[in-house]
Amino acid sequence: MNDNVVQVELSSRSYTIHLTENSFGKNSPIWKQVLSDLQPIKHAFLVADENVAAIAVNPIRDCFEAAAIRVSHTMIASGESSKCVSTLVNIWEQLLASKTDRKSVVIAIGGGVVGDLAGFAAATFARGLRLIQVPTTLLAMVDSSVGGKTGINLPSAKNMIGAFWQPCGVVIDTSMLDSLPEREYLSGFAEVIKYGMIMDAEFFSRLEALVEPLRAREPAALREVIATCCRCKASVVSDDEFETSGRRAILNYGHTFAHAIEATQGYGALLHGEAVAVGMAMAAKLAVSLKMLERSSLDRQTALLQNIGLSQNLTKFDLRKLWPAMQSDKKVEQGKLGFILPRKIGLVERVEGITLQQLQDAIEI
Amino acid sequence: MNDNVVQVELSSRSYTIHLTENSFGKNSPIWKQVLSDLQPIKHAFLVADENVAAIAVNPIRDCFEAAAIRVSHTMIASGESSKCVSTLVNIWEQLLASKTDRKSVVIAIGGGVVGDLAGFAAATFARGLRLIQVPTTLLAMVDSSVGGKTGINLPSAKNMIGAFWQPCGVVIDTSMLDSLPEREYLSGFAEVIKYGMIMDAEFFSRLEALVEPLRAREPAALREVIATCCRCKASVVSDDEFETSGRRAILNYGHTFAHAIEATQGYGALLHGEAVAVGMAMAAKLAVSLKMLERSSLDRQTALLQNIGLSQNLTKFDLRKLWPAMQSDKKVEQGKLGFILPRKIGLVERVEGITLQQLQDAIEI
Repeated sequence: MNDNVVQVELSSRSYTIHLTENSFGKNSPIWKQVLSDLQPIKHAFLVADENVAAIAVNPIRDCFEAAAIRVSHTMIASGESSKCVSTLVNIWEQLLASKTDRKSVVIAIGGGVVGDLAGFAAATFARGLRLIQVPTTLLAMVDSSVGGKTGINLPSAKNMIGAFWQPCGVVIDTSMLDSLPEREYLSGFAEVIKYGMIMDAEFFSRLEALVEPLRAREPAALREVIATCCRCKASVVSDDEFETSGRRAILNYGHTFAHAIEATQGYGALLHGEAVAVGMAMAAKLAVSLKMLERSSLDRQTALLQNIGLSQNLTKFDLRKLWPAMQSDKKVEQGKLGFILPRKIGLVERVEGITLQQLQDAIEI
Repeated sequence: MNDNVVQVELSSRSYTIHLTENSFGKNSPIWKQVLSDLQPIKHAFLVADENVAAIAVNPIRDCFEAAAIRVSHTMIASGESSKCVSTLVNIWEQLLASKTDRKSVVIAIGGGVVGDLAGFAAATFARGLRLIQVPTTLLAMVDSSVGGKTGINLPSAKNMIGAFWQPCGVVIDTSMLDSLPEREYLSGFAEVIKYGMIMDAEFFSRLEALVEPLRAREPAALREVIATCCRCKASVVSDDEFETSGRRAILNYGHTFAHAIEATQGYGALLHGEAVAVGMAMAAKLAVSLKMLERSSLDRQTALLQNIGLSQNLTKFDLRKLWPAMQSDKKVEQGKLGFILPRKIGLVERVEGITLQQLQDAIEI
């Protein structure tokens, strides 16, 4: 496998994910390639998380300005609370003030919050601008920067407002992970392990073997793992770009719980990946208690989450409080809530008709 | 020609425009057809202009509830000022409160403001809901309800925020025009005459012959004219759904001026159609002064606009004030402002590089 590029096949909306290290120099071949693919381009609007702006914004700006491309930029405060209407409107106003037009390109530099927010601003300004995703967290590299989901939260509903808007390219530079705080870095592995659980048992085993190098942030292990995750996600997204066939729903493993946890705790109390890890643990327990999944598979998931640093105490979550929030999940269709539950490692399915009592029983096992 | 249906061909996003009269009874075959095409459907969210709510909302609600479909609804204050961020956020919150999910359908009942606003809410709630447009003004019937453009204004830039979001059906009931105030009714003819100017000389001649019955709001004339306009627009939109090939730009005839007039006067001082009529007059004068268009064709356009009731005094518009607003038009690309100008009746082209002086000279002819 070539771990330097992953192609996302979406007919006219196909694009390339570039995987690289230390790409932020002036003469970076990756950025020259990206710029060349964007021609004609005269203006780029950079939206950057305040935490990475110092590292990434100036090198990208230099690279663009060297090619005579006008660069505007705005900084976004870190954290989920930025993914809101008022920040979005602020970006819209700045795009207008910067004389952004339909040939301009938005470059989203940061984690999932910046990617979703800047992506949605790109999707909706002048009815759609080109977008390059530059994910700088592990979570964004393996999940949110690929697949075209963009959006913001309403005060009581995460990701409720948004659009499908595919980037025209993704640049993943694993050296951005060096400075990521440990808690945020580790939380990204929930989505990594998710790909193993939902669709790739071999990858799950590989992750079990790679725990130490991954915890040590070894570049080769990271590149391999991130590329595999991107290929997994690209395959699902190619099958079901607009979440209509049901295939894409498997990516929601752990997320019905996670969204309810995030909504009831106030966004940001748990990191998204931490909430997903809790959700995966709950989903696997539910599957075991429904006799869908062998106990030994639950134990392997528990061990991998724990070894990577995502151990969880499920009893602190009040299911009676989470239950109403689950009912307002976007994935509820015609009033029916469905959970994505594992049959075995590498295979999940959607199950409807779960009761609160069943959840309460499951959490005890 | 069958003037009861117009098909908009957009591969998987194709849809039917139904043209009808007095369709708002409980047993309306049109609405039964629309409902049947929407199956499975359990919930509809009606967004209605306050001016038509009394006529249209209850009959549509009855029709849906008779089919055991839950109906929620919200009313929108009439006028362009509703096409703003705060009304949009209000609709998002109401969609959430009404337990709208991805299988729900949004029904937009009103003029262009409601269609654009409700359409954009549909495009962005839960990353996209199905949408039925029920235009109730002439302008919306012949223009905004067809083609998938949705959006809102920023305080200083009309239609700057939005998305391409095709409806899954359009229901045009010409009896809705009976109660339309004269000024609003007549203003719709700017876009009607536009289709003749940009692409259909035969239709332009037909309009010259139909002035009297159209001013009298005769149903047969209206049905013929609206169906022709829908076919014209459908043909352009099918060729260039996302405004990428340049073909769709012809629809912008008169609009670069119109948007600048609306932006500098504050939205709502002139009705959109009235501003477009002014813009078409300016564009045709500019074309004559550039020796692109024969004087006799300008005169025919002037006469038709005047006979239909859209006479205009161009000298009251200060071009030096309009000029900067034109530069921030969405259609500006890579800093280049282009005008759609007529070569002859039925044919237009894009012209760049026009100076303020050329405009000032043209307005005097």
